[in-house]
Amino acid sequence: MADVKALTTRTADFSAWYNEVIARAELADYSPVRGCMVIRPNGYAIWEQMQQALDRMFKDTGHQNAYFPLFIPQSFLAREAEHVEGFAPETAVVTHGGGKELEEPLVIRPTSETIIYAMYAKWIQSYRDLPLLINQWANVVRWELRTRLFLRTTEFLWQEGHTAHATEAEAEAETRQMLGIYRRFAEEWMAMPVLTGRKTESEKFAGALRTYAIEALMQDNRALQAGTSHNLGQNFARAFEVTFQTADGGLDHVWNTSWGVSTRLVGALIMTHSDDAGLVCPPRLAQWQVVIVPIWKSEEERTQVFESSERLLRELRAGGVRTHLDARIGTKPGAKYYEWEARGVPLRLEVGPRDVAAGTAMLARRVGARKESVPVDGIVDRIGHEMAAMQRALLETARERREAASLRGATRDDLVERMAGAGGFVYGGFCGDGACEADIKEQTKATVRVLPDEEFRSPTTPEKCIWCGRPSVAEAVWAKAY
Amino acid sequence: MADVKALTTRTADFSAWYNEVIARAELADYSPVRGCMVIRPNGYAIWEQMQQALDRMFKDTGHQNAYFPLFIPQSFLAREAEHVEGFAPETAVVTHGGGKELEEPLVIRPTSETIIYAMYAKWIQSYRDLPLLINQWANVVRWELRTRLFLRTTEFLWQEGHTAHATEAEAEAETRQMLGIYRRFAEEWMAMPVLTGRKTESEKFAGALRTYAIEALMQDNRALQAGTSHNLGQNFARAFEVTFQTADGGLDHVWNTSWGVSTRLVGALIMTHSDDAGLVCPPRLAQWQVVIVPIWKSEEERTQVFESSERLLRELRAGGVRTHLDARIGTKPGAKYYEWEARGVPLRLEVGPRDVAAGTAMLARRVGARKESVPVDGIVDRIGHEMAAMQRALLETARERREAASLRGATRDDLVERMAGAGGFVYGGFCGDGACEADIKEQTKATVRVLPDEEFRSPTTPEKCIWCGRPSVAEAVWAKAY
Repeated sequence: MADVKALTTRTADFSAWYNEVIARAELADYSPVRGCMVIRPNGYAIWEQMQQALDRMFKDTGHQNAYFPLFIPQSFLAREAEHVEGFAPETAVVTHGGGKELEEPLVIRPTSETIIYAMYAKWIQSYRDLPLLINQWANVVRWELRTRLFLRTTEFLWQEGHTAHATEAEAEAETRQMLGIYRRFAEEWMAMPVLTGRKTESEKFAGALRTYAIEALMQDNRALQAGTSHNLGQNFARAFEVTFQTADGGLDHVWNTSWGVSTRLVGALIMTHSDDAGLVCPPRLAQWQVVIVPIWKSEEERTQVFESSERLLRELRAGGVRTHLDARIGTKPGAKYYEWEARGVPLRLEVGPRDVAAGTAMLARRVGARKESVPVDGIVDRIGHEMAAMQRALLETARERREAASLRGATRDDLVERMAGAGGFVYGGFCGDGACEADIKEQTKATVRVLPDEEFRSPTTPEKCIWCGRPSVAEAVWAKAY
Repeated sequence: MADVKALTTRTADFSAWYNEVIARAELADYSPVRGCMVIRPNGYAIWEQMQQALDRMFKDTGHQNAYFPLFIPQSFLAREAEHVEGFAPETAVVTHGGGKELEEPLVIRPTSETIIYAMYAKWIQSYRDLPLLINQWANVVRWELRTRLFLRTTEFLWQEGHTAHATEAEAEAETRQMLGIYRRFAEEWMAMPVLTGRKTESEKFAGALRTYAIEALMQDNRALQAGTSHNLGQNFARAFEVTFQTADGGLDHVWNTSWGVSTRLVGALIMTHSDDAGLVCPPRLAQWQVVIVPIWKSEEERTQVFESSERLLRELRAGGVRTHLDARIGTKPGAKYYEWEARGVPLRLEVGPRDVAAGTAMLARRVGARKESVPVDGIVDRIGHEMAAMQRALLETARERREAASLRGATRDDLVERMAGAGGFVYGGFCGDGACEADIKEQTKATVRVLPDEEFRSPTTPEKCIWCGRPSVAEAVWAKAY
């Protein structure tokens, strides 16, 4: 531990702290390729847990996975006017293949609407082929000038759902359903509370009719868009001629939706829960939920504590608890504690000679109350309760933190003051005018995160726009965002 | 079923048959991007089953997943001389990003040795950091002029394992271990028998010390390389300066291995088992292992058979059997049978009014014996036995077919004759001379698939080279290959 120094604290420099948490826990690393990161095993394991949970939720709602090409002909992007305007400036372009210059350059997908709906046009003939509910797990590339690990990188991993429906109502219901799944995932798995709502015209997806999002508030009181769900209307269906024979013999364009979350969620998880000792990971998404650390002095003690530790390991694994035994010989217990804390393992069981004799283990929690001795008997149940309690507590703590950093019924001065200082969510009336939105952004750096869904709206509907004083058309939530 | 016509038969045109099986089962489709395919949900579901099984095997042997960038600086490829020679001609190159020309072009990874070992150089300091056992699930791009769905496409999905070890012996043991895992996966999951062995110098991976492979024989008697495992020696470690402090205080380069299988395996599965009625999928990898088809005439019957079918569905699913109920109203049973056969579902349960009354269902197998009535009572066990039997039978049939198409102790004339006619595996002595190998390839189109591992060698070791008559250094297996 000679060369181990404490992390920069969150209050001292949140951004430095974030990078150090990632480095210390070995979650990701910068790569030699500009703007691209390497997701290291510890970080990827969290992403795998996220993938599994989301994939189950997608399949339980009737979606199937498929895979579409990485390359998109440049001309495809151009077919939907808003889409190309939004994405063309940030594309990576392949101009040569197999040693020759290509006739038409290929864009690396920044998102796959165009290539997918080109295929849907081929697959969909009749209303009997609808709804078509497909998801893809893939890498995408958006050329970014300023990058941050997990939050904004040139290449990132994500899932993108793409569905086609016979009616506008069905497409809207699907858009809302997937937003609900994202919210449920954020709350139940990431222990991260989110606001749900609609994006303004200026913040919506390029080519969409309407964009909905889940928005979280990080510990530095900046907002993070954690997932989006788009009702694409018939925009892409028109651009790619995705038509179908209706039940009564007519011909119509399909109604599309698309929705996605990305490895950005790993960054969101880090910034929601972690502390000055390193990563804090909700038990449901932790690679290791429990780490067992044996403690011994003599060889005889070592044999005992290892026997006992291995029994514990088998029992916990058999009980479905993702458990790791830190069997390293040359590393001291204190150094192990420090390392596993930085890596965010929710629970630690220390097994020393006295514990073996007493049939106990010392339980240490990554957050909350201090150590206590627990009987080995019934350990699976006990650990299950501990994990459930931690999962709940993390969500509750994050929700309280967010609410404490939210100001409702704010005035123009409040907005200016908050954005210049503490940050957080500021709720107020919005006239709906993009010019007003742009002016706020310029003067305070805040953007409308969402026009919140009813559940998140303030008890009293604001009557006037927080900025211009004209009548408000909707309540809005402003924040500075990642 | 009016517009449904029979598939081209395998004997009439194997290649046409292959494409039609894929189209009929909706496994994949051509995309508008040259050389790239779309993996449709039915095909992707098989890949997902493959991924899950392989991923478990990798993790059970201590490997962890990670993710490295899609882009590789062009200069990286060039650092290992053989590697760049092998891969540079088939790369796709990004020259523009974010609207600007890049200072250094980026290659889309054709394989990730270079970018991964550049990172390993940063992560590995001491023998304590070894072995480093990492796997990546990713897309790769190799510019191909002649493509075939699943078998050879410009972009494909795969996994690539990359490990670093302290000694040559450990690296060799890892290389062999992973070959063994691939063999076990091919046999136990895909029901596809494979030969294992070493590749000749001319067929080895560009940059490797030694390449091992699993080789399967398709129904048209052409060989298919289904997986490779490379001992990279210290070649890449030297090129990327991946060094470590040894236990006794010295400094050494690490020893690397890499190994991979790809979506090509889906093509291998299709060509190993399928028949003139469409896809045949081994139960362990089937998206749906059982499909239930209710049969009714009156409304009253419909209520009965649906009730019974849904009970069956619940019971089978609870028993861990991936079961689908084909509840479509407007489609006749015969059309459903035809469709599910083409899609390769191993077992079908038909439930009609008489079955409901008798507490039975009609069991139809995708291959083998004809229909029989089975009691619904104890159905999970029965289906389990049926699936295990089918899994065994598919492997056995494929093995018998392969052996029938293998000729041991062959002469030069045999080799010429077989390659001009029936194809298959031809075993004979090999002088080890690349010139001889090249001459054989030119004259017969056959390549050495492997220098087989001991288990697969002929009882009598050939004394002379099959082609030139000089002393043989090893037995070799020749075939025309995909």
